[in-house]
Amino acid sequence: MMGKLKVYADRMSQPSRAVLIFCRFNGIDFEEIKVDISKRHHLSPEFAEVNPLQKLPAIVHGSFNLSESHAILVYLASAFPGIADHWYPSDIFRRAKINSVMDWHHSNLRHGAGPATGRSLNPKAAAEAEKVLLSSLSKLEDIWLNGDGSFLLGGSQPSIADLSMVCELMQLEVLDEKDRSRILSPYKKVLQWIEDTRTATNPHFEEVHNILYRAKKKFEQQRSRVAETGTELSNKMGGHSKM
Amino acid sequence: MMGKLKVYADRMSQPSRAVLIFCRFNGIDFEEIKVDISKRHHLSPEFAEVNPLQKLPAIVHGSFNLSESHAILVYLASAFPGIADHWYPSDIFRRAKINSVMDWHHSNLRHGAGPATGRSLNPKAAAEAEKVLLSSLSKLEDIWLNGDGSFLLGGSQPSIADLSMVCELMQLEVLDEKDRSRILSPYKKVLQWIEDTRTATNPHFEEVHNILYRAKKKFEQQRSRVAETGTELSNKMGGHSKM
Repeated sequence: MMGKLKVYADRMSQPSRAVLIFCRFNGIDFEEIKVDISKRHHLSPEFAEVNPLQKLPAIVHGSFNLSESHAILVYLASAFPGIADHWYPSDIFRRAKINSVMDWHHSNLRHGAGPATGRSLNPKAAAEAEKVLLSSLSKLEDIWLNGDGSFLLGGSQPSIADLSMVCELMQLEVLDEKDRSRILSPYKKVLQWIEDTRTATNPHFEEVHNILYRAKKKFEQQRSRVAETGTELSNKMGGHSKM
Repeated sequence: MMGKLKVYADRMSQPSRAVLIFCRFNGIDFEEIKVDISKRHHLSPEFAEVNPLQKLPAIVHGSFNLSESHAILVYLASAFPGIADHWYPSDIFRRAKINSVMDWHHSNLRHGAGPATGRSLNPKAAAEAEKVLLSSLSKLEDIWLNGDGSFLLGGSQPSIADLSMVCELMQLEVLDEKDRSRILSPYKKVLQWIEDTRTATNPHFEEVHNILYRAKKKFEQQRSRVAETGTELSNKMGGHSKM
């Protein structure tokens, strides 16, 4: 007996959302423990006992603790019985490709999608991040989504890589709709893939993303106030996206 | 029959070296195909057929191709018979921890060690990278190497994570000895771990790193010429370290 799985997460952070959606979709019995990054709760001494690296998400399963969302998703897909094979295929070649695209994600999309939403905090860094993002999107479109199926590497059902990377791109929701559309609209396969991943994992996908949609509305209201009054916008998304 | 494994590598790039040392140490029958990054051979149409992402290292095994060094190391440890379990433990908990430290590597050490060697190319980026590097070194010292054994996570023998991360840190060899020592000397466990990994994988470790030692000498000569003449130093390491 391992004891009930505990998932430490902040739904504003994209890798936290991926882990939560995975657990809910697969009927894993778990407890979600909210750690509010905007209140710096991830830097508390209590959380340092869970994860000395002070990053989210993190899990505790009995006496076993683990951080890094990709490692967590791989662990959950292997440790819990009855998780469908498409999430993390046992076939050595498909599994290797899934590992490869997730490693690619670290040094590409992960650098672009989050930081690109921090425009008002650091315009230069955000512009640099947007370059990385656009290059990553075009590689997603031309290479990773260049198969027969709806999902990465030609899959007909989503893997942990699809879930992880689509949650990353969902962070763009907080952008001005004009900016989001300018960035994403040239990438038709990417847009369809986001929709397919959403559909394949609903209602959990939408429920876990609700907080982001509410933040989007709040930012829209702030932006229109700024447009009216000229007050500077305090967009806190840049901080979240670094997790 | 898969056909002989082909490893596309540039020994000046740290993840290439990790894959080569792993193959040689484990007696894998493979062909090393040199792709010279400094001559931009990784951008050639021929190499794009091997790896459309145009990054090194990459492998071709029969009709199967794969990029990203971590994914390659995991694949090799699983696909070839007789690889000792310590490289990528089959125990689900130890494996999860190895995956976690390799994921951590992507967004920490990987950002620091390579770029920190590009001082003369972009001093501001190098200073920023050095900050990431120092923070990563202190986490390595206090968290990842805080076990009983000589290796990461308390291992008594090296894993693919040890090999990957030590090869990363070896990139610091090209720095001025004064700088290298300033950066590394406070981290006694890290220094011992580099030595232990070197010893555990020799003679392959040294043979594969020889090119780096030669580069180190060349840079030292350049630096003393610069000191004499005041000519600006052209240090090309920054470019390599981005691979």
